[in-house]
Amino acid sequence: MKARVFVNLKKSVLDPQGKTIHHSLQSLGYRSVNDVRQGKFFEISLDPTLSADQARAEIEKMAKSVLTNPVIEEFRYELEAVEAHP
Amino acid sequence: MKARVFVNLKKSVLDPQGKTIHHSLQSLGYRSVNDVRQGKFFEISLDPTLSADQARAEIEKMAKSVLTNPVIEEFRYELEAVEAHP
Repeated sequence: MKARVFVNLKKSVLDPQGKTIHHSLQSLGYRSVNDVRQGKFFEISLDPTLSADQARAEIEKMAKSVLTNPVIEEFRYELEAVEAHP
Repeated sequence: MKARVFVNLKKSVLDPQGKTIHHSLQSLGYRSVNDVRQGKFFEISLDPTLSADQARAEIEKMAKSVLTNPVIEEFRYELEAVEAHP
């Protein structure tokens, strides 16, 4: 089981890193860019014996308690079953 | 038009940041985690007058030339049409 957790700053929080990238892109001639926000993601391989429900519970717990700062960040995640090849 | 560009280290490149997160998670009791790799993403708002083809070309150009280091990183992206509300 593989999970991807995407973490980004809440809409209401300023993103100076994104602003810097936006300015760089504009100064390099990418005039069609209106805004840039940066985030991070985690690709997490989970024990294949976990059920989808268990995996979901684990991922939500670790996303809330470790991977994000809930004051300024929010997350979403996706689960992907990885086929076991014998 | 909104684009999301996901950048991660190539499989062959060591990810010490991911390893550190993996160890932290394990020491916090998340024993079902087998591996963690970290990446980043960019949420890019594009000029809504661009066609999907133009947007794709722009995004690929900036992903290759600015957003990734092609020696150690690879990227993928998704485009999302944003409805214009008059």
